[in-house]
Amino acid sequence: MAEVELIPGGTLQTQTPEEGRQLAIKLARMIIKATQPDADERARQRVTYATDPTMLIAVGQTVAIEFATIAAANDYWK
Amino acid sequence: MAEVELIPGGTLQTQTPEEGRQLAIKLARMIIKATQPDADERARQRVTYATDPTMLIAVGQTVAIEFATIAAANDYWK
Amino acid sequence: MAEVELIPGGTLQTQTPEEGRQLAIKLARMIIKATQPDADERARQRVTYATDPTMLIAVGQTVAIEFATIAAANDYWK
Amino acid sequence: MAEVELIPGGTLQTQTPEEGRQLAIKLARMIIKATQPDADERARQRVTYATDPTMLIAVGQTVAIEFATIAAANDYWK
Amino acid sequence: MAEVELIPGGTLQTQTPEEGRQLAIKLARMIIKATQPDADERARQRVTYATDPTMLIAVGQTVAIEFATIAAANDYWK
Amino acid sequence: MAEVELIPGGTLQTQTPEEGRQLAIKLARMIIKATQPDADERARQRVTYATDPTMLIAVGQTVAIEFATIAAANDYWK
Repeated sequence: MAEVELIPGGTLQTQTPEEGRQLAIKLARMIIKATQPDADERARQRVTYATDPTMLIAVGQTVAIEFATIAAANDYWK
Repeated sequence: MAEVELIPGGTLQTQTPEEGRQLAIKLARMIIKATQPDADERARQRVTYATDPTMLIAVGQTVAIEFATIAAANDYWK
Repeated sequence: MAEVELIPGGTLQTQTPEEGRQLAIKLARMIIKATQPDADERARQRVTYATDPTMLIAVGQTVAIEFATIAAANDYWK
Repeated sequence: MAEVELIPGGTLQTQTPEEGRQLAIKLARMIIKATQPDADERARQRVTYATDPTMLIAVGQTVAIEFATIAAANDYWK
Repeated sequence: MAEVELIPGGTLQTQTPEEGRQLAIKLARMIIKATQPDADERARQRVTYATDPTMLIAVGQTVAIEFATIAAANDYWK
Repeated sequence: MAEVELIPGGTLQTQTPEEGRQLAIKLARMIIKATQPDADERARQRVTYATDPTMLIAVGQTVAIEFATIAAANDYWK
């Protein structure tokens, strides 16, 4: 695995739910980046999954799981 | 990823479980939108997954995961 | 998405675990209904996934996730 | 869906973790039964997924999710 | 399903996180064993999924879900 | 399964969220290692899943599930 910053900003706390959602997307992408460090290869793959509904749905599931953790970490921004 | 509002309304709190469920569907769709910003491409894909039971079930799983977070954020509307 | 009642009865609270389980099945089905509003198409798909073990298992996973939320909402009917 | 008893015994509480695990298996099977009420068809499918590692793993995931709920309902038998 | 001991030792409590992880692997395997009691068939399948990255990843997901429950049962060994 | 150290360091507690994320990746990899102890075979598979978007997404889901447990174990580093 490549050395990448896995949590941009280094914290799970965010000001708003919207920012929490953005962080969830970043967490999901950083794992992809750590597993496949080649930027060209990732760009090639992004075209593949952006046009494949099954993969898009799977990306959505991953973000949903990451967001569950972030939301708990922020006490659901209550 | 395109700049889209990932949480319409900006909050996980809803008045009712029914609205929480609607929000779960929106959260799931906004991730698809952020990953695939082309509306025509999304429309094309929607036809694909609406007629494919495997994908429909996967959409359902994603919504279920999103809803778990929203329900916790609303203390299950008790 | 079609306008359907996503949570029949409008609440996650149920009298018994058995009813909670029935609600979990309904929640899962209502998402399918909202994504694919055509009843004939859904009937056609039901035949497909009732005879495909992979899909049946995936339906089971979705119900399990929905039920986890409902059980928490009912404090596990303790 | 057929009318079947979805939670044998009607409760999530069990005496032991082992019984909790058995209940998790039953919950998963009852959803399959409710979705595919034909016993012969289910028997045919069981042969299929018992010899297919991918399906066996998916069955295992479903049981794991059901068990998480049952374990929480029993305060982890502490 | 065959009669097998689904939770070796009969408890979710372990002395260490490492033992908790080992238990998670065992829980996942016991479900496979209960679903497919034929040892030769399981041995044959193990070869299949040990050489198939998709299945290996799915095994990993199952263990992760089992471990989440075990970790909660042990209050995360804090 | 081979005898490998499933949790490097033997604890779920980490100093930072970033380290928690690194631990989540390690936990996921150690399960793969325990299931497929042959290093050459794992290296061969790594090439396969690093170039296959579906597998990369599945790896990401597994890490997300492992991380949820680690984050809870660290009280979300609040």
